[in-house]
Amino acid sequence: MQHHTGLFIPGPTNIPDPVRRAMNLPMEDMRAPDFPELTLPLFRDLKRVFKTETGQAFIYPASGTGGWEAVLTNTLNPGDKVLIATFGQFSLLWADMCRRLGFDTVVVDRPWGEGVPVEAFADILARDGTHRIRAVLATHNETATGVTSDIAGLRRALDAAGHPALLYVDGVSSVASIDLRMDEWGLDAVVSGSQKGFMLPTGLAIVAVSQKALEAHRSSKFPRCFFSFEDMMRTNKDGYFPYTPATTLLRGLRASLDLLFAEGLENVFTRHHHLAEGVRRAVTAWGLTLCAREPKWHSDTVSAIVVPEGVDSTQVARQAYHRYGVSFGIGLNKVAGRVFRIGHLGALNEPMLLGALGAAEMALADCGARIAFGSGVAAAQSHYASRSNLTAAAA
Amino acid sequence: MQHHTGLFIPGPTNIPDPVRRAMNLPMEDMRAPDFPELTLPLFRDLKRVFKTETGQAFIYPASGTGGWEAVLTNTLNPGDKVLIATFGQFSLLWADMCRRLGFDTVVVDRPWGEGVPVEAFADILARDGTHRIRAVLATHNETATGVTSDIAGLRRALDAAGHPALLYVDGVSSVASIDLRMDEWGLDAVVSGSQKGFMLPTGLAIVAVSQKALEAHRSSKFPRCFFSFEDMMRTNKDGYFPYTPATTLLRGLRASLDLLFAEGLENVFTRHHHLAEGVRRAVTAWGLTLCAREPKWHSDTVSAIVVPEGVDSTQVARQAYHRYGVSFGIGLNKVAGRVFRIGHLGALNEPMLLGALGAAEMALADCGARIAFGSGVAAAQSHYASRSNLTAAAA
Amino acid sequence: MQHHTGLFIPGPTNIPDPVRRAMNLPMEDMRAPDFPELTLPLFRDLKRVFKTETGQAFIYPASGTGGWEAVLTNTLNPGDKVLIATFGQFSLLWADMCRRLGFDTVVVDRPWGEGVPVEAFADILARDGTHRIRAVLATHNETATGVTSDIAGLRRALDAAGHPALLYVDGVSSVASIDLRMDEWGLDAVVSGSQKGFMLPTGLAIVAVSQKALEAHRSSKFPRCFFSFEDMMRTNKDGYFPYTPATTLLRGLRASLDLLFAEGLENVFTRHHHLAEGVRRAVTAWGLTLCAREPKWHSDTVSAIVVPEGVDSTQVARQAYHRYGVSFGIGLNKVAGRVFRIGHLGALNEPMLLGALGAAEMALADCGARIAFGSGVAAAQSHYASRSNLTAAAA
Amino acid sequence: MQHHTGLFIPGPTNIPDPVRRAMNLPMEDMRAPDFPELTLPLFRDLKRVFKTETGQAFIYPASGTGGWEAVLTNTLNPGDKVLIATFGQFSLLWADMCRRLGFDTVVVDRPWGEGVPVEAFADILARDGTHRIRAVLATHNETATGVTSDIAGLRRALDAAGHPALLYVDGVSSVASIDLRMDEWGLDAVVSGSQKGFMLPTGLAIVAVSQKALEAHRSSKFPRCFFSFEDMMRTNKDGYFPYTPATTLLRGLRASLDLLFAEGLENVFTRHHHLAEGVRRAVTAWGLTLCAREPKWHSDTVSAIVVPEGVDSTQVARQAYHRYGVSFGIGLNKVAGRVFRIGHLGALNEPMLLGALGAAEMALADCGARIAFGSGVAAAQSHYASRSNLTAAAA
Repeated sequence: MQHHTGLFIPGPTNIPDPVRRAMNLPMEDMRAPDFPELTLPLFRDLKRVFKTETGQAFIYPASGTGGWEAVLTNTLNPGDKVLIATFGQFSLLWADMCRRLGFDTVVVDRPWGEGVPVEAFADILARDGTHRIRAVLATHNETATGVTSDIAGLRRALDAAGHPALLYVDGVSSVASIDLRMDEWGLDAVVSGSQKGFMLPTGLAIVAVSQKALEAHRSSKFPRCFFSFEDMMRTNKDGYFPYTPATTLLRGLRASLDLLFAEGLENVFTRHHHLAEGVRRAVTAWGLTLCAREPKWHSDTVSAIVVPEGVDSTQVARQAYHRYGVSFGIGLNKVAGRVFRIGHLGALNEPMLLGALGAAEMALADCGARIAFGSGVAAAQSHYASRSNLTAAAA
Repeated sequence: MQHHTGLFIPGPTNIPDPVRRAMNLPMEDMRAPDFPELTLPLFRDLKRVFKTETGQAFIYPASGTGGWEAVLTNTLNPGDKVLIATFGQFSLLWADMCRRLGFDTVVVDRPWGEGVPVEAFADILARDGTHRIRAVLATHNETATGVTSDIAGLRRALDAAGHPALLYVDGVSSVASIDLRMDEWGLDAVVSGSQKGFMLPTGLAIVAVSQKALEAHRSSKFPRCFFSFEDMMRTNKDGYFPYTPATTLLRGLRASLDLLFAEGLENVFTRHHHLAEGVRRAVTAWGLTLCAREPKWHSDTVSAIVVPEGVDSTQVARQAYHRYGVSFGIGLNKVAGRVFRIGHLGALNEPMLLGALGAAEMALADCGARIAFGSGVAAAQSHYASRSNLTAAAA
Repeated sequence: MQHHTGLFIPGPTNIPDPVRRAMNLPMEDMRAPDFPELTLPLFRDLKRVFKTETGQAFIYPASGTGGWEAVLTNTLNPGDKVLIATFGQFSLLWADMCRRLGFDTVVVDRPWGEGVPVEAFADILARDGTHRIRAVLATHNETATGVTSDIAGLRRALDAAGHPALLYVDGVSSVASIDLRMDEWGLDAVVSGSQKGFMLPTGLAIVAVSQKALEAHRSSKFPRCFFSFEDMMRTNKDGYFPYTPATTLLRGLRASLDLLFAEGLENVFTRHHHLAEGVRRAVTAWGLTLCAREPKWHSDTVSAIVVPEGVDSTQVARQAYHRYGVSFGIGLNKVAGRVFRIGHLGALNEPMLLGALGAAEMALADCGARIAFGSGVAAAQSHYASRSNLTAAAA
Repeated sequence: MQHHTGLFIPGPTNIPDPVRRAMNLPMEDMRAPDFPELTLPLFRDLKRVFKTETGQAFIYPASGTGGWEAVLTNTLNPGDKVLIATFGQFSLLWADMCRRLGFDTVVVDRPWGEGVPVEAFADILARDGTHRIRAVLATHNETATGVTSDIAGLRRALDAAGHPALLYVDGVSSVASIDLRMDEWGLDAVVSGSQKGFMLPTGLAIVAVSQKALEAHRSSKFPRCFFSFEDMMRTNKDGYFPYTPATTLLRGLRASLDLLFAEGLENVFTRHHHLAEGVRRAVTAWGLTLCAREPKWHSDTVSAIVVPEGVDSTQVARQAYHRYGVSFGIGLNKVAGRVFRIGHLGALNEPMLLGALGAAEMALADCGARIAFGSGVAAAQSHYASRSNLTAAAA
């Protein structure tokens, strides 16, 4: 009997106990006179997480997919030209959404394991003399392949080209885990969800947009209601919502933000890098490689690990789940059967990851991989023990 | 200090303890091999609640508003003609959504306090010889005014006119509280949300549609992704979702359905009627009237009570909230300041309502109404004590 | 189906949501280096609740009965003479414990409905020239009859007699609800439990003793281990315990103390009086009487109500429980069948009590009492509405 | 910031989520008519755990220490002769209790790391021709040293000597984790607590006694109230308690028993052995030894590990706690500084223990021990991966 299933998928992530406690509560009246005492600080504090002073945050009772749709349908018009690169399941889905929503979607297809092709984008933007491209879409962290892209570099490319396109970023698996600087990088929209770095259950799409995006919003004619910025802005300013909000998650978000700020955002990023680096050293010790093709693309929130020839990565994940009580991410679409993923974001520490690495070694071995027990664990330990006390230091 | 705020708004409703317990849990992997053991029975059991054997249920991480949008954008096309009556804030908002989504929206405006004008609809349908009207939209229970409409009668009107229009019902504040028979009444879509009769937190739009609606879906060209039926159907059939579902609420939904079936749906409806009737007798004893103009429109889930001249209903609700720790619904839009609302749906019993009525009496008196203390309570008690033991009998 | 059972017994009492949340947590290491950060402030803050600066607080994983035994077996010796009055089930049980533990127990038996007979005690003490009486035991609030005794008067009687006896008080159903002043009244031991004014689950005996009692402790030879003060003192001073403490309840106690201090202890007492007075007015309006024979004995935490001739109070409580979903206390021992009890302590407000009174009226009527519906409720409302906003003012 | 502290102490143990959920509930009336529906099955099912058909179970709101005291003070008389061996902190404390309670306590002192000296006991019993020894006390699992004693062998020794002494067992850290057969082994009392194999918070002393012990009870004159069997038996038979029980923990106990029975008691024991064996192989791989001197004494619930010369085991535990977020048990009393303890009982699985072993390796290394990273982990993995799927098989 498994009394506990370790959660090492790249979201949903583990809920810290203070957040879990904060959500163990009765329903409340979302029109109560004192409800804004909860909500107004949330909007303010989310901006700190997105690192924007001039932007605006929105909270939808939805998922990250809803967040993508909210941004696109509120700021563009059908037929608008958008530029996007695909190099994993989630960038693929976002590009697919663009097509389905009727945009003129320019897709740069890249091998899975690479990131946003900044130079290719620079060329395209440079050639777009009439500025037909209305928006450039970039997946900051591709959850399917464990690839983090260079968003600051993308901004520089846009600036170098003198291109006025809006810059939209999918930060679902990076926000609150990997540094993302909305104002500094000139991002016009960042999409996130509650179930990743925010360490909450699924159910909130959390979005931030720039004033430039809000300007674009005023000329957007997309049919929309549920996701409309205008309804949100009209009611949010007083601390209310156009329809019943998910109050349980809002209470949880308060607790989550308190934890993030108590630790310090920069410490949060450092902790994620520290934990991720241990996992990567384990992968190397196993003689395996990451799906991410270059170190510059290594993600600090998820590692997609290529299994040896002859091993079925889906089987590895199933073995880990059924026999050892650990959930890993499976390979999706093009990398199905070829990679399994260890999520290392949110509320985690070194011993939890050592246990996950140990389980991965056993599951890999069970499925035919030649893995020396303890080899990856030892490599991670060497990293974890050599560093100053990162997770505890922030306590 | 208020240790407890009584919740007597027409949603969100009180969460029963077994449901609250069911949601106090860690995150889980929504791609786990055994995840369908949770989800497949949910889809099946929701059909029992909607009373449909041939229909299909959808569960979105959204609110009821999202459910409205899901139905409209999945089954119609921009420019389609729809017929809807407005007689309260929520029917108004649905009509507004129709216009914003680009439908040719025929609106029959009725006084607030009346319901769906079946005869007027019958006339319009009869005159629509070319069957331009694609869909008839009806708010089963108008939450703003406490009005329940005659949906069975509306079906008869459609049949009498031989009109093939789709029949869509907003059952947000009726499903699982007031009888609604999807198959028997020939409903093509019913929209509900988690935070009313399902006694859950806000966060799920729960929708059921008929095969006829699914047929219409196949020719619907609306731009959509988040709410798309096609993505849901492709993944739901195996027990999965196209994007991360709100697993916490799905676990809660399991517990909620178990409670509903343990009590028996018909017993649930009878209990709601029983509790509502006590509230109505209290209103009569106070010498006040309901916003609902005729008994046939009396809602069993919410009573909108017209305050005496010179009394501000918003003030009554605030007084009840701040001084007595009870949340009542305020009057919205046209009836702002004129009505306050007592929600009597979900997990409630007689003593809770007696306390709410007692608080209403005090708040009304505090705001200048001439209400004899205990008068409404006594009228409700006479009703509650005279009946056989309804709430306990089902225990 | 009863989704909610209203709890109106004189303990356990309703758990406020912040306390419930605080206890929804994993186990922790009671030998952890930082465990004293939790425990040391608890001991300090409990002294504020007992109103003692010089005394010492003990926390046992036990019930109030354990607290009685802890005080007696730590500070007295077998054969010691103790003086106690019996006038209800709980004073009776305490006297019984004294006999069973081997004390020379002088019992003054009084009618149930009276309190500590201060004058009779004064006579006995005056006649005890050799000061054979080692301890005087007094039940501050007799939970079975709803009688609060005059402990300050008892102290004056001891002082007037110049008698050095220790003064021990059962404050199980008074501490944190009814004013009790350990230092000012010269109390040598006060016994309480977690499940009454502390608004926690059962499981902690909370005891405070004076330096004089600790002096007596040094010559006490009672066989004891589990309840020994010496083991507690040796370990508590560093924030630890001699055996595994109930950490869940300690975390809850932290939350409970925070609530009590946020409201202010004096406000807590005033609120209890305010709520109790409403219940008493209802009883008068019903034409019934309290078991407590004189107003000076009226308890602010529980009202024991004498039912009319021919009515069985046990039946009233059962009817309320089964039919209306409300728990009242039954009559115990000598008053079985004659009284039922409404607990009005802990986390309660006016509407909750109005609901309870309304349920009591229905249950009484169901059992044959001639009670006009709404009569008691109205009397309580008149009281609640006429007063300044007590429960809210403290918010 | 440590979002999670791994709990690897020999109790309290991790609370499984279904148990945690079961305890997240409001207070209830312990005199309610349907309360016995909860309690009567608990008494019955506890007997299955203790493996007794003829015995009787008691549940006290106390700790294991209270359970010891309950058994001694209910079945013996002051001055009675008892035989006990001391070989660790908890056997020492029990012997100490015997002396403090006034028994004529024959103590056989053994080196810490050994268990009950069955042969020495056999000699003593054989020489006790007049049967002055009323009770033999044995610590089934000494939590301080990780030593499990041969209780079946002790019974055989008693039988061989034809000695009628009562046989009392401390099963606090064995019951529901290590096989213990009350009837088969002729045990007259077994003491347990909620916070070990029962996977509950601290707060319940759970005790089972034989009919022979109940017979002894009838002639026991010890002063007692809180722990009295007689009060419990009088009320328990109808499903009630002599004073307010800890209802929250009783609800948790229901959930815990359900989990134990769903897994199957024998599977529970096998799982504990399987997990413990992995830890022991890790210790061997580290080149370290257990405090338990011989394999026959190896405990399946806790391993006390002797640190190398020059290393301070308290420092190891502190390092693990502060830097790696893992709680290990420290060495107590005679083995303070010399051993640290890994608790491996209750709700655990292999990856959790691998993480704990990994943390132990790092903490040991940090404190100066020469430990090859991953060495112990690998040894445990070899064991865990080679065995059939034990924890999952029972799922």
